[in-house]
Amino acid sequence: LIIIGEKINTSLKAIRPAVEAMDAVAVQDVAIKQVEAGANYIDVNCGTFPFKEPELLEWLVMTVQEVVNVPLCIDSPNPKALDLALKANKNGKPLINSITAEKERYNAIFPLVLKYSTSIVALCMDDNGMPETADDRVKIAHRLVESMTKEGVKLEDIYFDPMVRPLGTGSHYGIVAIETIRRIMEEFPGVHTTCGLSNISFGIPARKLVNQAFLISAIGAGLDSAILDPLDKKIMSFVYAAELLYGKDDFCLNYLTAFREGKLEV
Amino acid sequence: LIIIGEKINTSLKAIRPAVEAMDAVAVQDVAIKQVEAGANYIDVNCGTFPFKEPELLEWLVMTVQEVVNVPLCIDSPNPKALDLALKANKNGKPLINSITAEKERYNAIFPLVLKYSTSIVALCMDDNGMPETADDRVKIAHRLVESMTKEGVKLEDIYFDPMVRPLGTGSHYGIVAIETIRRIMEEFPGVHTTCGLSNISFGIPARKLVNQAFLISAIGAGLDSAILDPLDKKIMSFVYAAELLYGKDDFCLNYLTAFREGKLEV
Repeated sequence: LIIIGEKINTSLKAIRPAVEAMDAVAVQDVAIKQVEAGANYIDVNCGTFPFKEPELLEWLVMTVQEVVNVPLCIDSPNPKALDLALKANKNGKPLINSITAEKERYNAIFPLVLKYSTSIVALCMDDNGMPETADDRVKIAHRLVESMTKEGVKLEDIYFDPMVRPLGTGSHYGIVAIETIRRIMEEFPGVHTTCGLSNISFGIPARKLVNQAFLISAIGAGLDSAILDPLDKKIMSFVYAAELLYGKDDFCLNYLTAFREGKLEV
Repeated sequence: LIIIGEKINTSLKAIRPAVEAMDAVAVQDVAIKQVEAGANYIDVNCGTFPFKEPELLEWLVMTVQEVVNVPLCIDSPNPKALDLALKANKNGKPLINSITAEKERYNAIFPLVLKYSTSIVALCMDDNGMPETADDRVKIAHRLVESMTKEGVKLEDIYFDPMVRPLGTGSHYGIVAIETIRRIMEEFPGVHTTCGLSNISFGIPARKLVNQAFLISAIGAGLDSAILDPLDKKIMSFVYAAELLYGKDDFCLNYLTAFREGKLEV
């Protein structure tokens, strides 16, 4: 699983004050810990500071890449913030988070994908809002693949997010998300799928149980990336267990290594 | 999920002395606790006492049904033990655990299914031993369905066990088990699937993680019964979470009720 470490996001109380105060050491500490725990990308998001987002996002990129070598997932819908942050990026091919098939957003973000040769998280939604069915989501994915690959973007640089809706608003939304992942992975060989884990359980109690179950099921459907907290030992344990279960861990090697290194929490 | 409570099995150290001493109160206590925790069947197995299995199994049936009303899962390959236990059964339609497509075993057990009008756990194996692929398993299921329904057994009385092989002996066996469940549920509408959770993780450490991941995935594939420990709060929590995730819990009602009753362990 390609792990996108989610912890440097100012919507999280634990990091917000550090980013606001531009406390480089505190931010760098969270970046280092995530990489040590297995993060393949570090997400940076300061969207709760809309008025200084461009400068702050640029600062986050510069600050984080001082201490870790993994590529960054630059997380903003603001083209100006993205442009500044991408210009500052030196850590290999970054991942922009995110584009959609909404006309205005697409036209604002896509030029940056080309300008900086980035990978891109693509949300399965368009100007009709959040789609209802897996069919609707896959149709949007088709349109996005067509328009992006026409301009030279490779499938392996696209990370589709199925747009998970909360089970509390419809008990079929788990199946819709899992089915969307399965179909996108089947229809576009080489493409990636990714998503956060927490939308699925929004509004219901004991959320972690549902998030864990969802991650396991999504990996079974082919999900090959996730935006999560790599310092959450339990969720990482289930990443190892699910990859083992789904035949993605020959001779149980990764699982056994994780066990020996004390990374599994039963 | 149809829960078959697995705890009255003399291969488990905790119950073995109580059964050996024919300590009715101790056995009944375990039966009552499993039903309170949500067991729909109580499995009884004293196979580690082969020389007195018939009398002990009969005693277990009589002892357990004194205190609980749920039907029993009578767990033995020994036709004589099964016959005595089934004769003693008064708790509604019992479930025999188990038949296979092995000629000798089939011929010994199947008459008891008809004689006592029982439900039956059918293992997907035959005289060629444990099958390798999902295809092989489904073929055996076809033969068992054909021969049993010809004699009047209804699909809803058959519980197919996919015969899970340990991931430690082949990293594809998780997929094989899940695929077998999915195909059996698709090809025989109305039939049940069931299995224990622990074979999948035999020989590897931190087994509970893998057992939990397997249960969640198997429920996603259509598994509608499992042989498990209903007093294991964590595994029961994942039963609730998985049923919610897979659209089997309208308005999250069961999940929310379980939460309110303190049954969910995060």
